Amino acid sequence: MTIRLARNSGFCFGVKRAINLAGEAAEKYPETVTLGPIIHNPQMVTNLESKGIMAIDSIDLIAGRPVIIRSHGIAKEKMRFLETLDVPLIDATCPYVSSSQLYATQLSQQGYPLIIIGNKDHPEVVALQSYVEENEVYIISSVAEIPRKKFTKLAVLCQTTQNVTTLQEIVYDLIPIAKELRVINTICTATTVRQQSTFQLAQESDVMIVIGGKNSSNTRMLYQICKKLVVTHLIETSDELECSWLSNKQNIGLTAGASTPDWIIVEVYNKITKCLGDKEEPIVNVESIPGYKEESNARQ
Amino acid sequence: MTIRLARNSGFCFGVKRAINLAGEAAEKYPETVTLGPIIHNPQMVTNLESKGIMAIDSIDLIAGRPVIIRSHGIAKEKMRFLETLDVPLIDATCPYVSSSQLYATQLSQQGYPLIIIGNKDHPEVVALQSYVEENEVYIISSVAEIPRKKFTKLAVLCQTTQNVTTLQEIVYDLIPIAKELRVINTICTATTVRQQSTFQLAQESDVMIVIGGKNSSNTRMLYQICKKLVVTHLIETSDELECSWLSNKQNIGLTAGASTPDWIIVEVYNKITKCLGDKEEPIVNVESIPGYKEESNARQ
Repeated sequence: MTIRLARNSGFCFGVKRAINLAGEAAEKYPETVTLGPIIHNPQMVTNLESKGIMAIDSIDLIAGRPVIIRSHGIAKEKMRFLETLDVPLIDATCPYVSSSQLYATQLSQQGYPLIIIGNKDHPEVVALQSYVEENEVYIISSVAEIPRKKFTKLAVLCQTTQNVTTLQEIVYDLIPIAKELRVINTICTATTVRQQSTFQLAQESDVMIVIGGKNSSNTRMLYQICKKLVVTHLIETSDELECSWLSNKQNIGLTAGASTPDWIIVEVYNKITKCLGDKEEPIVNVESIPGYKEESNARQ
Repeated sequence: MTIRLARNSGFCFGVKRAINLAGEAAEKYPETVTLGPIIHNPQMVTNLESKGIMAIDSIDLIAGRPVIIRSHGIAKEKMRFLETLDVPLIDATCPYVSSSQLYATQLSQQGYPLIIIGNKDHPEVVALQSYVEENEVYIISSVAEIPRKKFTKLAVLCQTTQNVTTLQEIVYDLIPIAKELRVINTICTATTVRQQSTFQLAQESDVMIVIGGKNSSNTRMLYQICKKLVVTHLIETSDELECSWLSNKQNIGLTAGASTPDWIIVEVYNKITKCLGDKEEPIVNVESIPGYKEESNARQ
């Protein structure tokens, strides 16, 4: 019987940075707001509310309070508007996301029509699209959505949490329709590494528990990867875990999205050991879970 | 019983232009030279010799005569040297090839390491490589030869007669190793269209006869495409055709490389009808062969 956590599970560099910036803001100001949830984890958002950081969904609700820009970034025109307000701005946009936005601006200015590979409703993609200037832009998530026309030049950007294989497949099919194809692989290295580690653990497990926000793109991608290989359950908290899922399972695998706090991973692990009738003391930190390895902060 | 010629067979735009320029030179000067064969067709080269156009293989042999630059182009340093000589220069480099050379220069100046997809011994590729400045350059012809390292940025160019599928496969595998990948599809449209037409005819034939120079890259590519589908013979002239190849064949397919003159295609067609015991008069022009359609000159 083993219970193992996929390497590189939990908070990525950009999420850690955003949560740290929010923590600093909470110490400095009695109340701050984020436009939309700062990260895609409802439990973490609730935790921040207890520190006076409220997620609002409209600029009209700022009411003079300091504003934290969420990790996924916000649309350029909203950012420009916020800069005209007389409130402190704390930019917690993931630096990888900011980098994609800069590419969108530069490629627009160089006259490239753009393909953005991602989910068109995801806040990161909505924000990224706003950095495209007058150029043609197509937001697609599969080969089937490739525009049926020819291009003299064409650039490709990705949502940071996309799967590399999707990028490869789309680029393969773009080659015959574009004289010049300029591909910027804006997929975050941490995302790729996390997906690889999860894929490997899923191959060695009888059941996989994926922990993370159901509104989290990268968490859902981990779920998709695991469920092709083994019985998989996606949960946000330990309350959702059912002991019956573990009966007759020899190798239990855990993984967690980039926005899943360590404390939730620890609670799930302790619930699993309890389900299995383990008499030992609950663990108190994620480093004690077999397989744990902190995500490297090294940028691509 | 059918004998059909693949659409888009024979001289491409660049070859027609080179032969026309050579013809004009022959009228103007009693004797001119080309550095290497002007096109990859030995019979055409012999024909030009009769007009006073001699292929030489070294700059040392120019002896004050006007020089025609072959359709595949020549190395930059040779071109610069020729410009210092007091002889007329006629540049018959295919405009598509010149365009690739310009891309190689520009991408070099923008600091891109380069991948050139092609045959490293082919004159076009040798010339193209000379336009790369101090940058890293890798000449590869398959996925297996991709360098095993990571790149911040990387550009890809192709020999004009490459197969699009090879380009697609190589780019697919370059995606994970390059943060920015800039692909210029320098494969000539005529090459792609010719390959598609040949592929289609080969599927409908019992035997394929590929006509063209055995030193011609695009002719050999046609041979490779056909022989995967049907019994295929590669010949340079009608003398090489054996009547026994045609016995019990209902559908005979012909195709010809971009440097194959029409008169050779006509001779092969007449030899086939003779083999089959046809009593009709020999045809005199390629337009009379079923399936013939002139290649469009439209540039990509």
